[in-house]
Amino acid sequence: MTLQLSHRIGRMASLLALGEQIELPAECVSCVGKVGTMDLQKVVASIETAAKKEGIIHPSLYRETHALYHATMEALEGVTRGSVQLGSVLRTVGLRFSVVKGKPYNEGAEGDWIAVALYGTIGAPVKGAEHEAFGLGINHI
Amino acid sequence: MTLQLSHRIGRMASLLALGEQIELPAECVSCVGKVGTMDLQKVVASIETAAKKEGIIHPSLYRETHALYHATMEALEGVTRGSVQLGSVLRTVGLRFSVVKGKPYNEGAEGDWIAVALYGTIGAPVKGAEHEAFGLGINHI
Amino acid sequence: MTLQLSHRIGRMASLLALGEQIELPAECVSCVGKVGTMDLQKVVASIETAAKKEGIIHPSLYRETHALYHATMEALEGVTRGSVQLGSVLRTVGLRFSVVKGKPYNEGAEGDWIAVALYGTIGAPVKGAEHEAFGLGINHI
Amino acid sequence: MTLQLSHRIGRMASLLALGEQIELPAECVSCVGKVGTMDLQKVVASIETAAKKEGIIHPSLYRETHALYHATMEALEGVTRGSVQLGSVLRTVGLRFSVVKGKPYNEGAEGDWIAVALYGTIGAPVKGAEHEAFGLGINHI
Amino acid sequence: MTLQLSHRIGRMASLLALGEQIELPAECVSCVGKVGTMDLQKVVASIETAAKKEGIIHPSLYRETHALYHATMEALEGVTRGSVQLGSVLRTVGLRFSVVKGKPYNEGAEGDWIAVALYGTIGAPVKGAEHEAFGLGINHI
Amino acid sequence: MTLQLSHRIGRMASLLALGEQIELPAECVSCVGKVGTMDLQKVVASIETAAKKEGIIHPSLYRETHALYHATMEALEGVTRGSVQLGSVLRTVGLRFSVVKGKPYNEGAEGDWIAVALYGTIGAPVKGAEHEAFGLGINHI
Repeated sequence: MTLQLSHRIGRMASLLALGEQIELPAECVSCVGKVGTMDLQKVVASIETAAKKEGIIHPSLYRETHALYHATMEALEGVTRGSVQLGSVLRTVGLRFSVVKGKPYNEGAEGDWIAVALYGTIGAPVKGAEHEAFGLGINHI
Repeated sequence: MTLQLSHRIGRMASLLALGEQIELPAECVSCVGKVGTMDLQKVVASIETAAKKEGIIHPSLYRETHALYHATMEALEGVTRGSVQLGSVLRTVGLRFSVVKGKPYNEGAEGDWIAVALYGTIGAPVKGAEHEAFGLGINHI
Repeated sequence: MTLQLSHRIGRMASLLALGEQIELPAECVSCVGKVGTMDLQKVVASIETAAKKEGIIHPSLYRETHALYHATMEALEGVTRGSVQLGSVLRTVGLRFSVVKGKPYNEGAEGDWIAVALYGTIGAPVKGAEHEAFGLGINHI
Repeated sequence: MTLQLSHRIGRMASLLALGEQIELPAECVSCVGKVGTMDLQKVVASIETAAKKEGIIHPSLYRETHALYHATMEALEGVTRGSVQLGSVLRTVGLRFSVVKGKPYNEGAEGDWIAVALYGTIGAPVKGAEHEAFGLGINHI
Repeated sequence: MTLQLSHRIGRMASLLALGEQIELPAECVSCVGKVGTMDLQKVVASIETAAKKEGIIHPSLYRETHALYHATMEALEGVTRGSVQLGSVLRTVGLRFSVVKGKPYNEGAEGDWIAVALYGTIGAPVKGAEHEAFGLGINHI
Repeated sequence: MTLQLSHRIGRMASLLALGEQIELPAECVSCVGKVGTMDLQKVVASIETAAKKEGIIHPSLYRETHALYHATMEALEGVTRGSVQLGSVLRTVGLRFSVVKGKPYNEGAEGDWIAVALYGTIGAPVKGAEHEAFGLGINHI
């Protein structure tokens, strides 16, 4: 098992979340979306809905939802840095998210992995009182 | 105070950590480096040493070291996702780091801010048993 | 002070939460209940209410409520694994809980201790999209 | 950079939160207030409102709001000890807060720093079922 | 997807860790072991070594090691309750661990899942100064 | 149960840690000490050793050691604010600690409680590169 440079799904998801134009390898699938909220629940739900609608994860297979959920929670650790909370500690986010599924390892048996990246702003619920934030979560699927 | 699109230091630091070639606005300063270790202390020390050597933070002003330290710890939250530990929970990292200092807001009084980005791999101390990780921390300086 | 094999209140509480039929030593008291919710508050309240109603803790002595509260919070760390949250991160639980009070140590002066165990499922608010979870908290009382 | 004994803003803020009468050095500014709530958001908002009203931080400069926010969140770590939550885990606080801004270091270039101290009670939403709690956060501003 | 009562791998792993004699469904595989240490790394390594030796996970497939690692870390959250540390905060554990792999859901496509359970004692490095602890982690594999 | 103003052990411990001269009610016992280290273990051990030597807790009763341990860990949450670590994240502390045992509630049955307070500095392992920190933990004993 070795990470293939051309198939780093985390890097691809990161660039997509940052708004870069990139070309994905043929066997990768991805989606991009936006969510602005004080409610973490909505971030989780938006990503899950988009990933199911775009066919990145199976709509009714729990193991895929489970993989995506944990990747999303890990990305939220990066965004919230310390306490995974938004409105309850008086802050809000405006995020672009991306989900990329692909085979990052050169050995076929390593199968599919999923990356969730989040980039945008976090701050007080006051226009402009915000700075950038980023999160990335990766899981086998 | 409004984030200026052309001066998003978090986005710039993220792209640098991801290995992209970017051009920074004239008044921004930055550095890039690498660190591979099972010891968080070394990540913190490498970033501080590089930022001081490159003149991004003042070598003996504590308020600047303090700003950088917290930005680094926040970036490490994104990399470690849950428990800010490496070797003690049997994992190791290979990271490229970047530090960018600049004025992200259009109002001059908002002054300088600093961004620390980390991108690379985290995993077991076994070649290839690793996946990607990313972290970004931002602070006023 | 040595833990007596026959008086391990954590083991007894765990087996009760798992739905096993066990016999408790004469001086132990226990209760069992169920709670299904997206609201952590309700888990805490259900356990406290049951423990007071069954006479396991004194209904108006704060030191006993305090001991139970911390044992419950510790059990919830095991159930939530990372961020002590449910609905706010879009997940729900269906738990059987048990509380056991007894004297686990052979030296009388070690007095009473309390164990709270939780076993059930945690997952998305979608039927079946869930897996098992377990938590155990122990405190002197 | 050396902390000056007479200018320890954390110590001053702590004594003010504890209700002690102290005299502050001429160049220090401070405010004191109270907040009782099950809602963390209100603690954060009360401190920010008081600090702006008393002129301790600039009302519209984000870098100052940002510095205060992080100092407040750090103080809340001390009060909540483990999970930065109140009502969601069925507890409430009654706190006196203080904010002190000053120059704690003998070197002028170290500039202004801010301290937020919280002291009061935390406990169940039942009269008397509570114990004391304390938190202190410090940041450069 | 519905959890099958007879195939609850978390419940089986919990009972095995508690030292109960149980019979596993034909398609489940499991192992049990012991580890006593002040060093979290050793807990992680002991479980991984046992699971590989017993053929529960593939010795060189990273996706399986990754699944086991996260299940182990989640079980350690339950054991440590708050801060995933042992010796660094002056405490030690004596644990029996179990790993169970099986198909907990009635729909075949949900595939294999893995459960790691830990039960034993945690306490000061002084004989008898310890109480019970429990942790359970579950992951798709 | 009502906290008696004259018997607030948390307030007394806080003032002692801050170096104030106070008079304790007759039935309260206390001790004060100092510890400077990059190793959390030493903070925990110093407090335990002092509390046992001064007769504040029983030297061989585990329930008292357990109560003190948790009060100490809670105080360390306030000092470390986020991740309960020192040297591993390249920082060191110089702390004065105090332990106070007393009966804070007017109802006799509420019995003894213990408070651990920590005050001093935290920072980089460089002279002067540090700011103040405070922590308070309280437990029934």
